[in-house]
Parts: sequence; C-alpha cells; structure tokens
Amino acid sequence: MIITVIGIGLIGGSLALSLKQNGFADKVLGVDQNESHGEKAKELGIVDEIVSFESGIKEADLIVLAAPVNAIVKILPKVLDLVDHQIVIDVGSTKEGITLAVKGHQHRGRFVATHPMAGTEYSGPEAAIPDLFTGKCTVIVDREDSDPDAVKTVEEMYQSLQMNIVYHHSHEHDIHTAYVSHISHISSFALALTVLEKEKNEKRIFELAGGGFSSTVRLAKSNPETWVPIFEQNRDYVLDVLDEHINTISKFRTLLIKKDFESFYKLIQQANQIRRIVN
Amino acid sequence: MIITVIGIGLIGGSLALSLKQNGFADKVLGVDQNESHGEKAKELGIVDEIVSFESGIKEADLIVLAAPVNAIVKILPKVLDLVDHQIVIDVGSTKEGITLAVKGHQHRGRFVATHPMAGTEYSGPEAAIPDLFTGKCTVIVDREDSDPDAVKTVEEMYQSLQMNIVYHHSHEHDIHTAYVSHISHISSFALALTVLEKEKNEKRIFELAGGGFSSTVRLAKSNPETWVPIFEQNRDYVLDVLDEHINTISKFRTLLIKKDFESFYKLIQQANQIRRIVN
Repeated sequence: MIITVIGIGLIGGSLALSLKQNGFADKVLGVDQNESHGEKAKELGIVDEIVSFESGIKEADLIVLAAPVNAIVKILPKVLDLVDHQIVIDVGSTKEGITLAVKGHQHRGRFVATHPMAGTEYSGPEAAIPDLFTGKCTVIVDREDSDPDAVKTVEEMYQSLQMNIVYHHSHEHDIHTAYVSHISHISSFALALTVLEKEKNEKRIFELAGGGFSSTVRLAKSNPETWVPIFEQNRDYVLDVLDEHINTISKFRTLLIKKDFESFYKLIQQANQIRRIVN
Repeated sequence: MIITVIGIGLIGGSLALSLKQNGFADKVLGVDQNESHGEKAKELGIVDEIVSFESGIKEADLIVLAAPVNAIVKILPKVLDLVDHQIVIDVGSTKEGITLAVKGHQHRGRFVATHPMAGTEYSGPEAAIPDLFTGKCTVIVDREDSDPDAVKTVEEMYQSLQMNIVYHHSHEHDIHTAYVSHISHISSFALALTVLEKEKNEKRIFELAGGGFSSTVRLAKSNPETWVPIFEQNRDYVLDVLDEHINTISKFRTLLIKKDFESFYKLIQQANQIRRIVN
C-alpha cells in the first residue's frame, strides 16, 4: 500500500515510520509546506519521497492528514475534491470542526476521522519515533459517515500498530479530550508561567525541581503551532472545563485561607480517586 | 554507624534501604507509631529492628526524623532533649516551622535540617526503594546553626547517596519549594478533581487518558497524611504562589473568551521557556 502523509511532524512522522517498519506501507510519500521539514523527513528515512500535494493524493492508496487541526479543516475539502477510490484519514486532536468541514461532500465516505491518542511534548520530524502508538488508544469518530471498506482498512492500519480502537461521535470526542487532554496542557502551561514569573532566580528552580515538578510541567514544552489551533477548534468545551478547574483550585485556596485543613484533607482524598483510572 | 529512622515510610524507608545497601549504615533501627508499618518495614528488610522511641535515640549515632512535617515539629524538641553526642536530621518538605521549634534549644547544634528533593506519589514502607535519591538534589538549611561535625557527617551521608547538596536559609527554602513542589501538587489535585467531577463516565477517561494526562495528574495520587501538614506548615508562601497560578490560568481563560489566539500563542511560547530549566 502507498501512503501519503501530509504534514510530517511528530504524529505524521511517527505514523510513517511505524507503518513502514511493520510492513503495512510499501512506500510512504511525504507532503509538507515547510521545505526543511520535508528534507529532514527524507533524510531521516521517515518518507521515501517528497512529492507535490496533487501527486501525493493521486499516487496514494491512503492519505493521512497530520497537519495542525486548523490546517486540516482547510486542506481536507481540497483533498476530498481530488480523490475517487483513495482513503483519507486525519489524525487531529479535535474532530467536530474537521468533520463539519466536509459534511455533505460528495466523497465524504472516503474520509475516516481519527485521533490516535499519543504524543510527546516534542515536535517536528526529528521528534518522530516508531513506537509512539504501540498499546495506546485511537478514536474513530462518526464511523457511520464513512464507507465500510474505508473504515475496515483504517481499522487494520491501527491494529497493525497494536492500538486499541474506540468509537465516538465527533461531538462526544471533543468534550472528552477537552477533559483529559486539552485542560492538562493549559494547567501545565500556567504552572510553568507561574514558576517562571515568581522564581526569577532560575538557578534555584533548576536545583530544586524534582521529579514531581518535571512531570507536572512536561506538557508546558508543547509547541504553540500544534496547540493554539486545538484550543481554537475546541474553545467552547475547553472553556467549560477550564471554569470548573479554576473553581476547584480556588476551593483549595479558600480552604488554605480559612485554615480548614480537615476539608483540605478530604479534597485530597477525593483527588486520590484518580488512582482508579490512571496507574 | 547505627542509624535510627523515626517514621518508616517512602522517604525514611528509602533512606534506610539505601544507607544499608551502600554500607554507610551498619545497622538501622526503626521507630514507628504505626505498628503495622513497623512490622512491614522489618519484614521487608528496611530496618533491622523495631525499637522504642527512647532506645532508638539512645542507641543511635544518627537519628533521622522522617514523619509528616507537623509530627516532626512536635517530635524534634523531644528528641533533642534526649541526645548528647548523637546527630539528628529531619527530611521534611518544609523547614521554617521545624527549625523554629528548636530555636535556642541547648542541643540545637546536634540538629541538621535537611530536605532531600526526591519522592514518588506512593507512600508507606512498601513504597520504599533504594535508588530514590541517586543523582537528586538535597537541601541543608541554616547550616550555621548546626555543629560543624554534625554537618560534615550529614554531608558525607548524602554524598554516599550521590546527591548534590545545596545550602539555603530555611525561609528561602520554603519559598522555593512552594514554587517548584507544593504548587505542582495543588495543580495536580485540582486537575484530577476537575476531571473526576466533569467526566462521570469513567470508562471514557480510562480509554482516552494518554501519557499527557497521566503525567499531569501523577502527583494527585499523593497521600493527604504527608501533604496536608506540608500545606499547613507552608500555608503563606503556597497561598502567594497559588494566587499567581490562578491569575495565570485566568489569563488563558480570558484570551479564549476573547478569541485572542495571537496572545494565547505568545503565552504558550513564554511557557515553553521552562525547557531551559527542565529537560
């Protein structure tokens, strides 16, 4: 199978590497607006060739859109205009805006909207790693809007990566990812900014920052090119959960002000319940 | 050297294991209010014997206070009442309250206030691991208030664990740890509570929670027995940095409401500066 990856960064690049390695792809073509990204991806053996947008679509059996989500919203209709038999997927972190962009498109059936839930705080082709997806979860949304053969091939692709597939509606997907992914990023960005603001003496942070701090601010290294479009696309749900988050932090603040450490204890015990869900 | 550990949990237990393993301690005696912790620690080979508070002090060359910080504040003066030549250290996460509790004590010089900056989200003797401290940073505070021979032995102990030693005033220590450690915990507790509150369908969280979420809520598994006393001791500094943190998150909220994604982008770029400090 020939696969074209449009946008060869962390996610697109990792997918390309993995699918070449496990033999699902016989050949991977790369399309990237950023010329140096394209060259780097070829140099690193992530893609076999860098091709034009049109050739990438024409020559492929499967096209993967791995650009930032606002770019996917714009590119996807153009890709669907050009396909007939090819299968198109996207791997963006938001799904409502993307599916809406091709609602009613004559080739909508060739498109399968997906979200492999994997990543690191790094970006660009250099960040691509072959085992990024192994054992992780991938979401296929609005399955009923895609042609059954297209869904089947995409399922086979994710299964070849040993991913667990779950099925959501696009709306439901965006709410849940606001909760478990997008808000974690804002929390981490804010924590990093707070510490950078309060702690002008960076040597002290460096000396004292233990594993706890490093793990809590890890996501704060995530790049704005990827993340601003995600917050733009998922603004309403993120705002909702952000309000809840601010209320919860303020609860801790109020209890500290009141010196009500009994209630503080109970809140921590409640938070500990997250153990049931995350190992 | 005979070392007595008072409070054999994650930190005290890990210290006991490491110091036996590297030969710094010839024998480790354990003192724990919680009988089952004591038995468990003996069973796991963390301590050689469980002894009474009085024997633990009398028989030791070095006494390590590894109880929750509010307990250390209460126990430390009693320990110093009983020592003459022995060295006493604590390993608590706050330092002002603890040093204040023995200010002017006739045996103050035998006490060295320390904070090895290491930990995990687990607790109790079962959580003890021998390599917890290797390569991490430890703080010795108010060095000038301790006898030089006591400081020297404590430095040798931490060097035997391959720890980097830094020296702070107790006041300065508590401010810095509020920034880089305590606030991370509140942020993580609040994030866990927010998600648990908003996401009633736990199966969905479980399916979708990727590495990013897991790393951001890792500290939310930390136990209240350890952490409430820390927040109690370090309340004022934590409140100060908590206000800043709430302001920063609210900044993100305002920009989302205004759809000012250009400023949102700049804020993320600023947060990315944390890369300079945390790898």
